[in-house]
Amino acid sequence: MRQSTLFAQTYREAPAEADAISHRLLLRAGFVRSLAAGIYAFLPLGQRVLRKAENIVREEMDRTGAQELLMPAMQPAELWEQSGRLGAYGPELIRLKDRHERDFVLGPTHEEVVTALFRDEVGSYRKLPVTLYQIQTKFRDERRPRFGLLRGREFVMKDAYSFDEDWEGLDRSYRAMYEAYRRIFDRCGLTYRAVEADAGSIGGEGGTHEFMALADIGEDTIVSCASCDYAANLEKAEAAAPIAHDLAADIPEPQRFATPNIRTIDELVSALGLPASRFAKTMIYVADDQPVAVVVRGDREVNELKVKNALGAETIGIADADTVLRVTGAPSGFAGPVGLSVPVLVDLEAAVEDGWIVGANQADYHVRNVVPGRDYRPACVGDYRIAAEGDGCPRCGAGGLRFSRGIEVGHVFKLGTKYSESLNATFADRDGNEKTAIMGCYGIGVSRLLSAIAEQHHDGDGLAWPMSVAPFRAHIVPVSANDAVQMALAERLYGEIRAAGIDALIDDRDERPGVKFKDADLIGIPIRIVVGKQAAEGLVEFKHRSRTDQETVNAGDVCDKVKEAIREAEQACRT
Amino acid sequence: MRQSTLFAQTYREAPAEADAISHRLLLRAGFVRSLAAGIYAFLPLGQRVLRKAENIVREEMDRTGAQELLMPAMQPAELWEQSGRLGAYGPELIRLKDRHERDFVLGPTHEEVVTALFRDEVGSYRKLPVTLYQIQTKFRDERRPRFGLLRGREFVMKDAYSFDEDWEGLDRSYRAMYEAYRRIFDRCGLTYRAVEADAGSIGGEGGTHEFMALADIGEDTIVSCASCDYAANLEKAEAAAPIAHDLAADIPEPQRFATPNIRTIDELVSALGLPASRFAKTMIYVADDQPVAVVVRGDREVNELKVKNALGAETIGIADADTVLRVTGAPSGFAGPVGLSVPVLVDLEAAVEDGWIVGANQADYHVRNVVPGRDYRPACVGDYRIAAEGDGCPRCGAGGLRFSRGIEVGHVFKLGTKYSESLNATFADRDGNEKTAIMGCYGIGVSRLLSAIAEQHHDGDGLAWPMSVAPFRAHIVPVSANDAVQMALAERLYGEIRAAGIDALIDDRDERPGVKFKDADLIGIPIRIVVGKQAAEGLVEFKHRSRTDQETVNAGDVCDKVKEAIREAEQACRT
Repeated sequence: MRQSTLFAQTYREAPAEADAISHRLLLRAGFVRSLAAGIYAFLPLGQRVLRKAENIVREEMDRTGAQELLMPAMQPAELWEQSGRLGAYGPELIRLKDRHERDFVLGPTHEEVVTALFRDEVGSYRKLPVTLYQIQTKFRDERRPRFGLLRGREFVMKDAYSFDEDWEGLDRSYRAMYEAYRRIFDRCGLTYRAVEADAGSIGGEGGTHEFMALADIGEDTIVSCASCDYAANLEKAEAAAPIAHDLAADIPEPQRFATPNIRTIDELVSALGLPASRFAKTMIYVADDQPVAVVVRGDREVNELKVKNALGAETIGIADADTVLRVTGAPSGFAGPVGLSVPVLVDLEAAVEDGWIVGANQADYHVRNVVPGRDYRPACVGDYRIAAEGDGCPRCGAGGLRFSRGIEVGHVFKLGTKYSESLNATFADRDGNEKTAIMGCYGIGVSRLLSAIAEQHHDGDGLAWPMSVAPFRAHIVPVSANDAVQMALAERLYGEIRAAGIDALIDDRDERPGVKFKDADLIGIPIRIVVGKQAAEGLVEFKHRSRTDQETVNAGDVCDKVKEAIREAEQACRT
Repeated sequence: MRQSTLFAQTYREAPAEADAISHRLLLRAGFVRSLAAGIYAFLPLGQRVLRKAENIVREEMDRTGAQELLMPAMQPAELWEQSGRLGAYGPELIRLKDRHERDFVLGPTHEEVVTALFRDEVGSYRKLPVTLYQIQTKFRDERRPRFGLLRGREFVMKDAYSFDEDWEGLDRSYRAMYEAYRRIFDRCGLTYRAVEADAGSIGGEGGTHEFMALADIGEDTIVSCASCDYAANLEKAEAAAPIAHDLAADIPEPQRFATPNIRTIDELVSALGLPASRFAKTMIYVADDQPVAVVVRGDREVNELKVKNALGAETIGIADADTVLRVTGAPSGFAGPVGLSVPVLVDLEAAVEDGWIVGANQADYHVRNVVPGRDYRPACVGDYRIAAEGDGCPRCGAGGLRFSRGIEVGHVFKLGTKYSESLNATFADRDGNEKTAIMGCYGIGVSRLLSAIAEQHHDGDGLAWPMSVAPFRAHIVPVSANDAVQMALAERLYGEIRAAGIDALIDDRDERPGVKFKDADLIGIPIRIVVGKQAAEGLVEFKHRSRTDQETVNAGDVCDKVKEAIREAEQACRT
């Protein structure tokens, strides 16, 4: 394609509201434009990257035997009532009425629709397993759209859904998707981790992994082990049990002492001159309307999700001041585990039979020498805290856990029967018995991929696309549009490269060389062929966008060099 | 792909509400499913056809140099306010509010968005001409969705928009799209006519053509000449001027006569025993709040659109009884052109200086011997009637015009400056002057294509897809899944055909032969290879879906025969 006619303008500066490097570069280089908060148009350069990413996704989905379909964005609200999500989803769900006042939603995902299709289409185990997928536009009215394509309100997603006879089948379907996802993200040139994750609001039982592209802008914290391949997102990350150590043989009786107006661990640390790890912090929560107490070490934080899962609760939240007063008999800041009538959940670390300093359940008092088991009886002991950087690895025991930031680009999820039960998606098994299909769901944020790739593949001068998703693979830049020799050679190379089936952009604009090179760096096409003064001798400069060196080559060798660079790039991302 | 796992069920009967043969067959054969009125899911078979049609459209768009982009479905309502369409579009436009109560519409088309993008991206004539297109999901809340994909509420459309410096440029862009459309519909195997059409509600000036796939179910009437290539839709079709003939030399004075309670042409014909063509019918309309009278021959109908265009009016409608009384002094049924104070538009046929029978503008009276020009003065004489079957051709004069029914599958339209003016899309011309871009817009109903093709390509047994858009090109049908020799040969052929890069479906189901053949006919894959009893001798049956004959061929020749059939089909649609 000819750059003179390319529908895209480059900018030296990004708009002030662009809040991520990927977003700034995609705007500046003319890949996307914002129409409203979180709503984007893909200009030709961006659309080319999007289509290449889509094709990688499609190829890998097809390779697993998944079948592509296309479901509508407008979904009858009745389906969402049946699944129970209509009320639960909140204001992110875009709702509308048609001209006959019938209720619809714009699909943020398609569990309901695909399950209804399955119910009507598949009656027998002989049609199982089946995995269906689509690449389609989704709508989610984010409260705070940001980071460009990373958190938008209208976006392109690949969503897949598997249906199996039993849980073993689901394990196989899940594994096939997991492996396909690895190939997809490898081919897209992403550095990522597949992390264990929590079910979240989508519901369901069983395993789930998030695929996280590593990037500082990432909204999620990834916990990983330096020694083994353990990786999880922060809320899911297991905290290792404390290392056994010798306890004080005789711990004296608990002893109450005055702590006037000293409520927080920080205040206790200052006042008493002891490390935070000597204190046990007692937090009052309300889980499904029932108050519970949770005890963690003073230097730790409660992981509400772990508590919620341990209790099998639907909802959890920190108790208000009134509830704390009612449960502990004291204002907030003086709660302790001794003598409470509500269940007390104690984190593994805080359950060590040592003498802890805890709240006295009385205003302005704490107690020292409180031994779990001796002085109060935990309802459960378990992992209830947020993992901390440097913790021991819960898998291999060795190594300190590291924290990093990630962008969620994919998610595989064992749904189980959440939707197949509520929407009555059953089939006859080989004995003729009616069984409920076991489902999995699998998402990839296709438009989000562009931002994730841009976060990882850029430098100070602009974007530097991996070969597999680059808008064009070769960029031919004649230095002077007024030099007939240069232009003739550039056009010849452009013709040869395209004749070899390789997409190329030629900068045929009458612009200063500085402008051309700056734009080329900004747009980030992987192979650049500069046709300059040496054109008369049949020589051009050959350069990789992501390398600093460049090479003078014979024009006659250019096409082969381009092919070789493409081959190398393909091999690199398959290893 | 293996039919045993294909996510699609076939039905012997279509649901009662299926109201077109294409709709019934697409449902029965498992290509689409309805989620709500006018809202469909494309199952894998349908999705495959949709993607092949999309690819044909994309290839031909790219060939013209048009650039693909992707615009959002959610469009800020402000843009529609600026263009003036927000109020004008009516209840077909789906409107919604986001969580911050901002107004959006779901795009039925993208003139506003693309014009805003152009305005921000292109500043100079040097970037012109440019044509942008997308293949995208559109929303239109049809009052009465019907005929399956033909009139849906969510559908896939290719929409393109050209921007030119001047009208001559637009003519070239328009012509390039027109020719691309011909190639697209040819490649899709459609029989169609490109007809002259009216601008309709989208607005604008200049030419417009509709591409009509011929089909009885079509909602539009196409008028075409048997002798030349004149074709137009009914509302646009010109009515030829009447052939000159000798008039009665002396027509007596007008003479009023009693016609008690005789109001309609039919009643007059019965009462007076004269043909309808002897009467002139006077209709009172209200155009932009002003009453006008329109006179046509008694056997003709007024074409409101022609009247509206002749008056340059925004709106037109038949006058109510009160207005008729006020304008004519008589109740409806007795209006005539003589003595009216409102403008009288007279159709060419009714302007012939003959003695006409007309209403007397007095209850229960008509007048005979009324000569236009002598007895009343027309404000304008012109073509104000609906063309009739058998009319002379307005182009070549010869031949009677024929009527047929068509499905609108494409539309090319000279928009002019309607949107570029209201949205301020200007550029600097080569003299540095600010000019308004001249636009064209070009649509293809991509999902609708499936129905149009199915309407034209089926028989009593099912669908019969053209090779170019068939879900698979070859269908391998082993007669008995329990016959090891048959299955082995079928699998071998399946492997060979796929290895040749040809998509194939193998019916590996354990079903009776009758069921398999019925399903094969219903689904309509163009090439069928039946592996039956002669498999032991290495022989199979080779059949084209759309032909009745079949041929016994050596298994070793099958792959070549398939390739040959594909080549033939490609050549046929390129001629």
